[in-house]
Amino acid sequence: MLSQLEKAQAFRQSHFDPNILVLPNAWDVASAKIFERKGFSAVGTTSAGIAASLGYPDGEFVPKELFITIIKRITESLSVPITADIVNGYGTHPTPLLETIQSIIDCGAVGINIEDGLVNGTLADIDHQSEKIQAIRTFSNSLGLPLVINARIDTYWAHIGDPTDRYDHTIQRAISYLAAGADSIFIPSIKDPVIIQSFVTAIDGPINILVGPDSPSIQELEQWGVARVSFGSGPIRKIYAQVEAIAEEIARKGSYHTLADPMPYATLNHLSE
Amino acid sequence: MLSQLEKAQAFRQSHFDPNILVLPNAWDVASAKIFERKGFSAVGTTSAGIAASLGYPDGEFVPKELFITIIKRITESLSVPITADIVNGYGTHPTPLLETIQSIIDCGAVGINIEDGLVNGTLADIDHQSEKIQAIRTFSNSLGLPLVINARIDTYWAHIGDPTDRYDHTIQRAISYLAAGADSIFIPSIKDPVIIQSFVTAIDGPINILVGPDSPSIQELEQWGVARVSFGSGPIRKIYAQVEAIAEEIARKGSYHTLADPMPYATLNHLSE
Repeated sequence: MLSQLEKAQAFRQSHFDPNILVLPNAWDVASAKIFERKGFSAVGTTSAGIAASLGYPDGEFVPKELFITIIKRITESLSVPITADIVNGYGTHPTPLLETIQSIIDCGAVGINIEDGLVNGTLADIDHQSEKIQAIRTFSNSLGLPLVINARIDTYWAHIGDPTDRYDHTIQRAISYLAAGADSIFIPSIKDPVIIQSFVTAIDGPINILVGPDSPSIQELEQWGVARVSFGSGPIRKIYAQVEAIAEEIARKGSYHTLADPMPYATLNHLSE
Repeated sequence: MLSQLEKAQAFRQSHFDPNILVLPNAWDVASAKIFERKGFSAVGTTSAGIAASLGYPDGEFVPKELFITIIKRITESLSVPITADIVNGYGTHPTPLLETIQSIIDCGAVGINIEDGLVNGTLADIDHQSEKIQAIRTFSNSLGLPLVINARIDTYWAHIGDPTDRYDHTIQRAISYLAAGADSIFIPSIKDPVIIQSFVTAIDGPINILVGPDSPSIQELEQWGVARVSFGSGPIRKIYAQVEAIAEEIARKGSYHTLADPMPYATLNHLSE
């Protein structure tokens, strides 16, 4: 069993391995355990998934204590490194932000996603976001657990500004966040192979790409030099579509074909082991 | 918007309607909201599902406070009546048992499942279980919120005793639990049409049948006089089988066809409304 520090080191190093880091995103302990059992070397969380399962929209609407409780259950139930999606860090100012970071480290997590997209659809000021990243870097290092900071840039995700400026704007933010101490740069919503490869070339640090049904394959992304792929809310959104299909069949037909081939009850009850 | 008491009354009455009561079992707020939106008149919870999602085996291993937190989130997020699966009631003795009942009522739930199967594979003493049911009946009535008590009998579920005695044993328990104040009798693990119909005839109270992929249809159960059908951990076990399939495809093939046709992100974020 690796220590938390060893897990953080191994997880950071995996961004520089020849093999791409494939990071599925869990929303509860069972989904995280299933990913671990399938052999993934690390597991992320999805803030949108945790929020929906608890009855909140994505963002920081889940009470922080409950949000941390779920992340802690996931972290203490798995052996592999866990990286937590903490939205904007549950804190604009240093005190609440670093309280969040303390909680995340106390949970046993070794990495975070922190995003510059705000709930109102705009982006955080680049200097302010860089200062937050720097504060997390300094604070977590001072605790002896240098968190792996995945800095999410929401220029494409939130359709910020003129599309012709978006690429340069993203590069500018990536440079600033890496200088502030980010370990990797996460740019959701880009699927064009040319743009992906341009970012890999232009940014001097590991790049995280969000994938979904119509994305390039993992093999292609690896060939292009992408360091990390993740799935965000894709898996849980597929799952809830399946719940809708089950509900639809029961309600309309009174039959249960959509329930065929379930996980055995005994397997469910031993998932946490 | 109905009051909690009106919801309890409507839910109790639905066991006597000509139409069978179809009660899907949710494990989180999103699954519960999906069931409500599909038009189900009430929603149950699944203890096995809530436990697995939080990383515990079925039973009473989830810390009671966290278990109640999840039920509360489900109850406060939905408009339809909610009935909570509380396993053995989180209490053998009256004080902790009635504390659980107080918490469940405070959550806004209007019904419970309480089972006589114990975690060691045996059944609770019939008199002791009847006393627990009577205590819940008296206590919840005294609070002005007569809970709808669904008394689960685990003779078939836990393969108790000689199969030839199982039927009579179940009848004996049903009589005792109804006399103690149960509103309905839940006998999981029976699928034989002859046995189901025998219980409907022999037991003087509403019968709840657990259904799965190979069960008689809802129309058949309604024809036979079954009052209520529920799904237990069936839906969540299908869901986790789907997570396994998603994980398998990503890990083995590097593709994402299993993620096609997800719930849209905007729908996910508005589920809680």
